[in-house]
Amino acid sequence: MPQLRLALAQVNPCVGDLDGNADLVVEWTRKAVEAGAHLAVFPEMVLTGYPVEDLALRESFAEAARHAVESLAGRLADAGCGDLPVYVGYLDRDEVGARNAAAVLYRGTVVARQYKHHLPNYGVFDEQRYFRPGASLDVLRVHGLEVGMVICEDIWQDGGPISALGAAGVDLIVSPNASPYERNKDDVRLPLLARRAAEAGAPLAYVNQIGGQDELVFDGDSMVIGQDGALLTRAPQFVEHLTVLDLDLPGGAARTAGLVGEFTVTRRTLTESPLEPYQALPTPPAAEPLPDQAEVWSALVVGLRDYVRKNGFESVVFGFSGGIDSAVVAAIAADALGGDAVYGVSMPSAYSSEHSRSDAADLASRIGAHFQVQPIGDMVRVFVDQLGLTGLAEENVQARCRGVTLMALSNQHGHLVLATGNKTELAVGYSTIYGDAVGGFAPIKDVPKTLVWELAKWRNAEAEKRGEVPPIPENSITKPPSAELRPDQLDSDSLPDYEVLDAVLDDYVEGDRGYADLIAAGFDAELVDRVLRMVDRAEYKRRQYPPGTKITFKAFGRDRRLPITSAWRERHPVAH
Amino acid sequence: MPQLRLALAQVNPCVGDLDGNADLVVEWTRKAVEAGAHLAVFPEMVLTGYPVEDLALRESFAEAARHAVESLAGRLADAGCGDLPVYVGYLDRDEVGARNAAAVLYRGTVVARQYKHHLPNYGVFDEQRYFRPGASLDVLRVHGLEVGMVICEDIWQDGGPISALGAAGVDLIVSPNASPYERNKDDVRLPLLARRAAEAGAPLAYVNQIGGQDELVFDGDSMVIGQDGALLTRAPQFVEHLTVLDLDLPGGAARTAGLVGEFTVTRRTLTESPLEPYQALPTPPAAEPLPDQAEVWSALVVGLRDYVRKNGFESVVFGFSGGIDSAVVAAIAADALGGDAVYGVSMPSAYSSEHSRSDAADLASRIGAHFQVQPIGDMVRVFVDQLGLTGLAEENVQARCRGVTLMALSNQHGHLVLATGNKTELAVGYSTIYGDAVGGFAPIKDVPKTLVWELAKWRNAEAEKRGEVPPIPENSITKPPSAELRPDQLDSDSLPDYEVLDAVLDDYVEGDRGYADLIAAGFDAELVDRVLRMVDRAEYKRRQYPPGTKITFKAFGRDRRLPITSAWRERHPVAH
Repeated sequence: MPQLRLALAQVNPCVGDLDGNADLVVEWTRKAVEAGAHLAVFPEMVLTGYPVEDLALRESFAEAARHAVESLAGRLADAGCGDLPVYVGYLDRDEVGARNAAAVLYRGTVVARQYKHHLPNYGVFDEQRYFRPGASLDVLRVHGLEVGMVICEDIWQDGGPISALGAAGVDLIVSPNASPYERNKDDVRLPLLARRAAEAGAPLAYVNQIGGQDELVFDGDSMVIGQDGALLTRAPQFVEHLTVLDLDLPGGAARTAGLVGEFTVTRRTLTESPLEPYQALPTPPAAEPLPDQAEVWSALVVGLRDYVRKNGFESVVFGFSGGIDSAVVAAIAADALGGDAVYGVSMPSAYSSEHSRSDAADLASRIGAHFQVQPIGDMVRVFVDQLGLTGLAEENVQARCRGVTLMALSNQHGHLVLATGNKTELAVGYSTIYGDAVGGFAPIKDVPKTLVWELAKWRNAEAEKRGEVPPIPENSITKPPSAELRPDQLDSDSLPDYEVLDAVLDDYVEGDRGYADLIAAGFDAELVDRVLRMVDRAEYKRRQYPPGTKITFKAFGRDRRLPITSAWRERHPVAH
Repeated sequence: MPQLRLALAQVNPCVGDLDGNADLVVEWTRKAVEAGAHLAVFPEMVLTGYPVEDLALRESFAEAARHAVESLAGRLADAGCGDLPVYVGYLDRDEVGARNAAAVLYRGTVVARQYKHHLPNYGVFDEQRYFRPGASLDVLRVHGLEVGMVICEDIWQDGGPISALGAAGVDLIVSPNASPYERNKDDVRLPLLARRAAEAGAPLAYVNQIGGQDELVFDGDSMVIGQDGALLTRAPQFVEHLTVLDLDLPGGAARTAGLVGEFTVTRRTLTESPLEPYQALPTPPAAEPLPDQAEVWSALVVGLRDYVRKNGFESVVFGFSGGIDSAVVAAIAADALGGDAVYGVSMPSAYSSEHSRSDAADLASRIGAHFQVQPIGDMVRVFVDQLGLTGLAEENVQARCRGVTLMALSNQHGHLVLATGNKTELAVGYSTIYGDAVGGFAPIKDVPKTLVWELAKWRNAEAEKRGEVPPIPENSITKPPSAELRPDQLDSDSLPDYEVLDAVLDDYVEGDRGYADLIAAGFDAELVDRVLRMVDRAEYKRRQYPPGTKITFKAFGRDRRLPITSAWRERHPVAH
């Protein structure tokens, strides 16, 4: 049976960095060549990064990307990698429009190019806005095996290229992907890939990128599935990784070309005959997907790390309030950048408790962060006295003086400001715009409050397992949450218990269930009424919140947009 | 020849306000009945408002909208309007998904419903995300005439429903629209409608909504075009208006039903025979489209007015700096809400000139606004001294103390804060995030600086024509622009001359031209390099800017998204 050594390059490109991404492809192709691979596959649009958003519409960028893929072919040949066929995703553009494309580079030229067929236009995807779909499938004969390709969404939709390749005949399918992380996504991905491999009657090599890009984070999870649906190997999540796998395939697929269904299948031979039999490498073990909290934590760490680094920052600054949110953000930041890159600022006001400051100092020393205390009393007093502020206006001025302080430190010293709000607060609008919402990035924006606590406990327990100091002060975990903007204020004055609140939000936001459904599910009518009103009213605040790592399908961000001006409220008896 | 009296109801709905919009339909249908109309047409999705964005995905909302259209049919009959067929746009949902729909209400029931076929997914439109397309056309026989319908985008795309109706045979086509204003859009709209009427071989009645909805503003411009392409009548822009027009049509269209092209055409008779001949009303004169500056000004006034009112505010507050931007915003706000609803705040710092304050006071008295002076020196001093700020950090703290002051006044007194930045500043990032970018709405966000001056001069000249006090102090128009954040600072220290800058931005942003094109167009290479770098770097700032009225196709807002994290820069010789 024909053999083939496959290399899956799970790498971390940066959007727009055509030169850097080309270097990345050369570097990892070299590794594949050193490992004796016969075929190498990189992620979807690896050369441009993903998603390029409106850059897709800029002709000069598409032209540069097209040029970059041609010149990369030459570079690979010059680097002694010419004999290895390499699948490289990029942005193409022809007379029809922009294309989500992948090219095969071989002996200094582009020997095949294929355009993505299914263009996702839901959730974070807007591909029907940017790309035109392709309907041709370029199958290559490599060492006696027929190798077909499908790009990302093409494996998520029924029918289409996978069926066509199955009908036309292939021995192997490779699939470049840029598939954003979502919590427990692998539970969906693996069975799906198994089904597709069976549908095509061929093994499927799935390659996904890793790394953070604005709100998205990619987890990799690259893998190879046998045509029987068995998982042959899988790369570890959230790290760059080269998976090298020897396949021993039956070969002998039909070699139908021309129109198959709605696709035009072309065949091209790179190397006609099978390789001489060789000693296969041991199959690399399939990495287990990370356990839930470890997976979420990794996503948050990588999302923050790449946002900071890819945007050219080296350090972060934010308020250390002594509370749980800023403590968890601090632990994430320390894991992402090192404690020395973290600048914590305690900004006590007249209403701050003594433990706020001491818990903040404790946090800084646990993670090795820089720490300073900047009382905001003098600043607040000028505003309150001069403008005659009371009530909510006085509360908000405190949060805003903290925001101005952090931005001033950022402008003076070059740190990126982090906003420490969680998803629960964002959902109900429990934050001060231009106050605690200040920042360039919001690491736990998509983490509900109850999960914040869970992650804190998990991270501390991990530290203890490793014999390290737990990063998060116990007191920050156990004390009742408070904004400390007026005497003896507690979150529970304004909000329902977080366990209940997160349950309602999960149904309303993630589950898109209406008022009647929520009541039917057993929630208290007055509570549901109150929560839904808060959520419906907070759209403007949510839009003004900084971007943050997305870990669910329904993060608040670019893919969730309610009108700001809207009179719609879920109907309910208590309002009538 | 059969006659028919047509009523086009150019109204201003509010997104989500099913009850209020139903009231609006009843009110204007009554007017149509009083005018003796035989057919009334309302805008696209008038019952839900447009665009509903993610509300389209909420089943409880779709269900409520569906219920609302049924119950509206009953209400109209109860109100004595049952014999008038009324075309009402709404949100429908069936087993396939959500639908951009229009129903015909007659004698207490829905007698026809049709789904939009072409779903725009460019610019401000995301309809492929929300709706599934329809492929059926419901033609109604009304007083002996065959009346077909197409919804909005269906007239902007070649082929499709218009051709199918032409092939199947209709005597008249009505078209409900929600077509956002863009500068000089009527120059495109009118020839397009003329072409479509000819294509269908039937007159076309185009009904568009008016009013502001978040970033969009609708100008109306409803009209009727003869099948020869002649403009029969046109409604005035930016005001609610009922156009009543008697048509005298040849009738006798073919009555093909069943599959026509890709569409299923159904026919239904409401009233078989033509009306007895009657005395036609005089044709209402075709309103001229407003001249350029008047049209833009109206768009800005209506956009601001509706954002404020539909969001439940009654007054606005913002900084009166003495400069041109805040002066123009003040004049717009006074035209939109009345001077008494405008609260101007002069916030001088150590670097503010004497004329800043006096020009601001002059502005307030010209437009009859409330005015107060709040020096920011004491606030700024605390931050600067405590945090040891210098340079840019010190400059930004001034802008931010003004932002905190305005938000405090908003929280204390309930005004909506307006941000006064213009499109040129947004493009190049010449603003302070959380400083002058603070606000709930930014009226001139999409107005380039050179157009700001033009509008100021135009508005003053209009006042003089009417014998009124020109709202904008001459000094604010003529003095050189300055941010006044350091001694003797002028915009020209940091930015190219605004005439040149706006010309480059127009080519780069509106024209999507690359570096090479700009050089070829004769711009100085170093200047282009500098401007493009500023624009490319300012994406994060632009995303954090408040929404504002969109007057161009390429406003900075939801429909323009570059990645924040991006290494892409237009290539150019000077950087190498």
